[in-house]
Amino acid sequence: MEIIRTVEWMKQVAREARSADRLLGFVPTMGALHEGHFSLIREAQKQCSPVVVSIFVNPKQFGPSEDFQKYPRTFEADCAALEKLHVDYLFAPSPEEIYPGGFRTAVVVERLSDRLEGRARPGHFRGVTTIVLKLFEIVGPRFAYFGRKDAQQWRIIRQMVADLNLDTQVVACPIIREPDGLALSSRNRFLKDGDRRAATALYRSLDALRREISSGERDVTHLLAAMHRVLGAESGVALDYVEIVDLETLEAVMSLRRTCLALVAAKVGGTRLIDNALIEPDGDSIRVTL
Amino acid sequence: MEIIRTVEWMKQVAREARSADRLLGFVPTMGALHEGHFSLIREAQKQCSPVVVSIFVNPKQFGPSEDFQKYPRTFEADCAALEKLHVDYLFAPSPEEIYPGGFRTAVVVERLSDRLEGRARPGHFRGVTTIVLKLFEIVGPRFAYFGRKDAQQWRIIRQMVADLNLDTQVVACPIIREPDGLALSSRNRFLKDGDRRAATALYRSLDALRREISSGERDVTHLLAAMHRVLGAESGVALDYVEIVDLETLEAVMSLRRTCLALVAAKVGGTRLIDNALIEPDGDSIRVTL
Repeated sequence: MEIIRTVEWMKQVAREARSADRLLGFVPTMGALHEGHFSLIREAQKQCSPVVVSIFVNPKQFGPSEDFQKYPRTFEADCAALEKLHVDYLFAPSPEEIYPGGFRTAVVVERLSDRLEGRARPGHFRGVTTIVLKLFEIVGPRFAYFGRKDAQQWRIIRQMVADLNLDTQVVACPIIREPDGLALSSRNRFLKDGDRRAATALYRSLDALRREISSGERDVTHLLAAMHRVLGAESGVALDYVEIVDLETLEAVMSLRRTCLALVAAKVGGTRLIDNALIEPDGDSIRVTL
Repeated sequence: MEIIRTVEWMKQVAREARSADRLLGFVPTMGALHEGHFSLIREAQKQCSPVVVSIFVNPKQFGPSEDFQKYPRTFEADCAALEKLHVDYLFAPSPEEIYPGGFRTAVVVERLSDRLEGRARPGHFRGVTTIVLKLFEIVGPRFAYFGRKDAQQWRIIRQMVADLNLDTQVVACPIIREPDGLALSSRNRFLKDGDRRAATALYRSLDALRREISSGERDVTHLLAAMHRVLGAESGVALDYVEIVDLETLEAVMSLRRTCLALVAAKVGGTRLIDNALIEPDGDSIRVTL
């Protein structure tokens, strides 16, 4: 695996791949890699060669009171894992390489970025879309892989790619979970023992939703109530929001007629966690994917 | 000349040029073409082949009270002129092709976009950077040509290209003027006879600045006063601003130690006009380019 530190070198590698008509696959990360990231990389390797992984803890997507300083950084272990997976290139630029003095540009996806995570974390998605566009311009991927765990991020990036006529295809990959259902996240390592148990309430609330839907419940108010019952029963969980929204608009729905997301966000022992389920009507039945 | 109406077709042409290692040059316009545009095209033809010109009157860069509806549209004459210049491709998409339903993304260059023209026309540069980025993604130019008449636009686009790591090189071309100094603009056709004479005050104020500088004046307050004297003497000119700003920050300067712009904006008979001079210190002397 070649470790690339500069934009120019990364661009050169990308240009060569393009000239040789190779399908470059890209997995952008903030490091602290776990099985969720590895699943994205394996998916990329099925479809693409070369595969580029980036590690960049993007300061612009953290608010002033958020955990940028504290965000886990495990570069040595990450490199070892990427080597083992036979990743071709690791792009790991410095903050100064990405945001030189005088940097002034931002990309915003309006409306979709203000709600849900965007309401809890003002400016977060503006930071995400700006870095993702920059990385796409630098890495020039034909395919880029994102985890469906960050569902709103995936939705926003898909919109940005369409609106800006980018040539990158966004691939959304399944949520990877612990045996007890907890969605993998770099932040899970901050959970202490008691929190770790409480944290499964997010998954359990989505599982309750799935069971309600599969037993015929269609009323959104009842479905939200079922989720709230699970989350409310767990005293370690400080709920931020539970919503069922239209996948296209991210606005709360009154019925499940179109593809929806059930989204939950909460703090558990000071650590902010999110999880979601994809709800897809299919004739008379509804498929729920956790 | 081939006229291209869809994004997909334009992308296909751009891909083929790239595959063949041809240097694609791009001149984005809003039509109503004049000698200023033609000079950009000739410059592009010196360096590039193929050359793509776009005509798209971008609704997003006009404010609600501005002249989008009234903006001159002379498509047949434009096509004839482009044919005569042997332009390879004209990209002329519909608004729906560029902004399909659900479009939500914007590119902003912060700080630079709020002052001067941006203060007079809120949202204008957000509209400009968004369409220019889209056009760059669609057309994939190696070089793109902009007139220095729209100096703030040129400065902002150059910043966007650097910040987003785009592969396009922005080329700024000289201002083309009428024999009496009036900078060419598609809006000049709105000037009635009396306004036409008054409109030269913008140029004359910049010419006064140049004469003051060449006779040794360095005091910015005095230079601005000289410009104001010319503009104030012309009753048909409703001045918006006269400023001398740093080219990098677009902030007002107290001295001419770095490269600066002298900018003037005014309404003449209801038509908004802008003009500027580039001020470049060179040792003890200062070059002023109108």
